Amino acid sequence: MDRKVLHNISYGLYIVSSIKGDKMNGCVLNSVIQTSADPATITICTNRNNLTTEFIKEGGVFTVSILPKDTPMKFIGLFGFNSGREINKFKDVEYNLGEKTNVPVLKENSLGYIEAEVRDIVEVETHNLIIADIVNARSYDVDKEPLTYSYYHQVKNGKFPKSSPIYHEDEGNSGGKDVEGKYHCEICGYIYNPDEGDPDSNIEPGTPFSELPDDWVCPICGATKDKFSKV
Amino acid sequence: MDRKVLHNISYGLYIVSSIKGDKMNGCVLNSVIQTSADPATITICTNRNNLTTEFIKEGGVFTVSILPKDTPMKFIGLFGFNSGREINKFKDVEYNLGEKTNVPVLKENSLGYIEAEVRDIVEVETHNLIIADIVNARSYDVDKEPLTYSYYHQVKNGKFPKSSPIYHEDEGNSGGKDVEGKYHCEICGYIYNPDEGDPDSNIEPGTPFSELPDDWVCPICGATKDKFSKV
Repeated sequence: MDRKVLHNISYGLYIVSSIKGDKMNGCVLNSVIQTSADPATITICTNRNNLTTEFIKEGGVFTVSILPKDTPMKFIGLFGFNSGREINKFKDVEYNLGEKTNVPVLKENSLGYIEAEVRDIVEVETHNLIIADIVNARSYDVDKEPLTYSYYHQVKNGKFPKSSPIYHEDEGNSGGKDVEGKYHCEICGYIYNPDEGDPDSNIEPGTPFSELPDDWVCPICGATKDKFSKV
Repeated sequence: MDRKVLHNISYGLYIVSSIKGDKMNGCVLNSVIQTSADPATITICTNRNNLTTEFIKEGGVFTVSILPKDTPMKFIGLFGFNSGREINKFKDVEYNLGEKTNVPVLKENSLGYIEAEVRDIVEVETHNLIIADIVNARSYDVDKEPLTYSYYHQVKNGKFPKSSPIYHEDEGNSGGKDVEGKYHCEICGYIYNPDEGDPDSNIEPGTPFSELPDDWVCPICGATKDKFSKV
């Protein structure tokens, strides 16, 4: 099987959130589709081991916040490469509570949001399809472009965590391993390319890894410099 | 509910095909997601009244051909705005039969294809989620970009048929109705804009509708000029 073609399936990138009692959590998802127009339903695909999945199963509600193209990599890393079992991802994030579900929706880095009530969950191997009624939806900024997985991967050099339905160890998740001077993050797979620098942290193109400030961290997962090894 | 935010969900565009006995059919879909990586599964969302859905239910197999960015509008119209109950969509199309499923896969206008065997079908209102094992996949051209729904809609002025899970009559499916000189297709909703012409048919920008050749047809659904009315 030639899995490369699977990389040509198009996705957006979203923060899907849920609640359990007074706890809240969210994660990055790529697999979000509208399932029907009238009545409006939505289906998302989540890893069955994710804390957000556990919360959705328990609470029966979730929200989808749509990330814009200019979302900083650190923000994606906060939700994508950390577990809500270890940190409160919403601690320093601006959010509101959805009017219908009481589940967090992003106020920053969001084109708008959808609130949904679960009607069915279908287990598919490592993942779940969660089918839900759209009970509320709101746009913040219709003129901004959404962030696509393709842009995140190809332009921003972004990676996917192992919990993603499209993660595959063999190929595609770590580009450009052949260029001198690159370092890769052992936690999330991000590759620091001196030719590109790290615009999110104001590191200019042409800066060698050795000259990065000591307090520089991985733009995706927040790992410190000692978690990087030479490619 | 502010449905505008639903337009910010990102999709690709695909031709999904199936067979029933010696008949074959295909349709345009936007809702295709990988559901799990290992084993590899895929989920598609189809209208329950589509002939392709009937064939998939009967045959238990389907293929997904991934459309490239430069797919002509006429090709999309052939599969998206016609019914296989009335025409043989594959009559003038170059295709192979998938090695594992015997279902047509595109040879033209395709970045590659996926062959799939259905494992579960979940009804959701007007649509079905069809969950399947990926039994074969092949890339033709990994350097070409896939066609996204956003590009089709915004740049190519493309429309969606009523059978789509993202079609909604009230908004978004017929842009720019306020500009003088535009004509809209009563069959598919396409709007001829003289400022843009119709590049697929070599109609130059600046050509008024009245000066289009008599044999000109709608670039999406193939309707003749008399099916157009002034906007």
